[in-house]
Amino acid sequence: MKLCRFIAQGRVHHGVYREGLLLDEAGEAHDPEGVTWLLPFSPGKVIGVALNYADHAEELGLGRPEEPALFWKPNSSLLPHKGAVRYPRGVGFVHYEVELAVVVGRPMRRVRAKDALDYVLGYTIANDLVARDHVRDTFRPPIRAKGRDTFGPLGPFLVVGEVEDPQNLWLRAYVNGELRQEGHTSRMLFSVAELLEYITEFMTLEPYDVLLTGTPKGISRVLPGDVMRLEIQGLGALENPVVEGA
Amino acid sequence: MKLCRFIAQGRVHHGVYREGLLLDEAGEAHDPEGVTWLLPFSPGKVIGVALNYADHAEELGLGRPEEPALFWKPNSSLLPHKGAVRYPRGVGFVHYEVELAVVVGRPMRRVRAKDALDYVLGYTIANDLVARDHVRDTFRPPIRAKGRDTFGPLGPFLVVGEVEDPQNLWLRAYVNGELRQEGHTSRMLFSVAELLEYITEFMTLEPYDVLLTGTPKGISRVLPGDVMRLEIQGLGALENPVVEGA
Repeated sequence: MKLCRFIAQGRVHHGVYREGLLLDEAGEAHDPEGVTWLLPFSPGKVIGVALNYADHAEELGLGRPEEPALFWKPNSSLLPHKGAVRYPRGVGFVHYEVELAVVVGRPMRRVRAKDALDYVLGYTIANDLVARDHVRDTFRPPIRAKGRDTFGPLGPFLVVGEVEDPQNLWLRAYVNGELRQEGHTSRMLFSVAELLEYITEFMTLEPYDVLLTGTPKGISRVLPGDVMRLEIQGLGALENPVVEGA
Repeated sequence: MKLCRFIAQGRVHHGVYREGLLLDEAGEAHDPEGVTWLLPFSPGKVIGVALNYADHAEELGLGRPEEPALFWKPNSSLLPHKGAVRYPRGVGFVHYEVELAVVVGRPMRRVRAKDALDYVLGYTIANDLVARDHVRDTFRPPIRAKGRDTFGPLGPFLVVGEVEDPQNLWLRAYVNGELRQEGHTSRMLFSVAELLEYITEFMTLEPYDVLLTGTPKGISRVLPGDVMRLEIQGLGALENPVVEGA
């Protein structure tokens, strides 16, 4: 089931995507091109993992981290499908990152990897944008590099009950229609289940907390005027334009 | 005004502290020793600043950071006055940090330092506990070191309209009654107003977001059985015991 939230005729709707249409609570169909998209759910805390794909770590000339390199994506950075990413003035290099986002369904504390997927509610797509100028330590990117307003597109759907194996999905990122990034979740260094075990050893994860699981090889620069389109198998496509910052 | 929230006779109360008593919504007085304390408000995101006192940076053998070194304190780590900090199994060195916590009152984006304090709702005390074993880069502590469940005591009050100058307050931390840490907010490397300008250049701060402003010299180890008591001038005392972890 592909759940979403959107505004149509001035009202917020909780909908389901089916055969190219958005069905609202009353079963009425809306054209996805004619609505204003919202985040598919209200996220709790959002945690990212740096350098979680072997090919991406190689691309940056770095080895495998000893343990998951966690960072924070503040809620104020989140942006729905179709929302405009604002390119910050004075920043030289901004890049996109396509990532499988895992949405927690039940409180988790000290959960073992073998049980961890039972606590997952669903999955969506994240674009973990980075102002590369501000990164000095790739293992631990500063809040300024990844926490900027609009640097966290997430959506379009919360996909529940459809992903059989989160380690068996391809990911792709297009800029202006050109394929720039391609990978497969089987290449993660720490699996979704292993990440959840690592984090919940010291931190409680709560319903609607989100885990971004890292990006594969193929990052490249985007500029105002570009449109990013991120696809993950079975999760749809997350599309966001880049515009000049205020 | 010293605002607080507590449970008495099974009900949640929003109260005011006055002359040693907690007055609830109906004006009824409660003994502070007889209630269960809650966080004084529901925090949004909580951002910390590492190495923001010259004497503490010296204590660690480090220089002044070029820019504020921000880190994240997840909401799942927060703990009210009197709540038990759980000492994690297998961790060798845990220390407290007394910090002035700034509570945001209005949405802030690109606010200049000279105007920043107009956006502040009030102040409280934070204990920014750290599992020192997990710190490799003091300028950017990992989430595992500072984001652990119960490692963020905050309170007891949200103090509104009483602090004239946040750069003119003494801070003290006692362990089992012994004075261990002492400092003054005039020794901050980046003032409250400067930190708010720095952060809001790239991130929106929203009502009830919290900024922890760093700790002065005097960190030391705590162990299960210890009681920490943190005082800041005009803000009361935040007291939390350390207990053996699960």
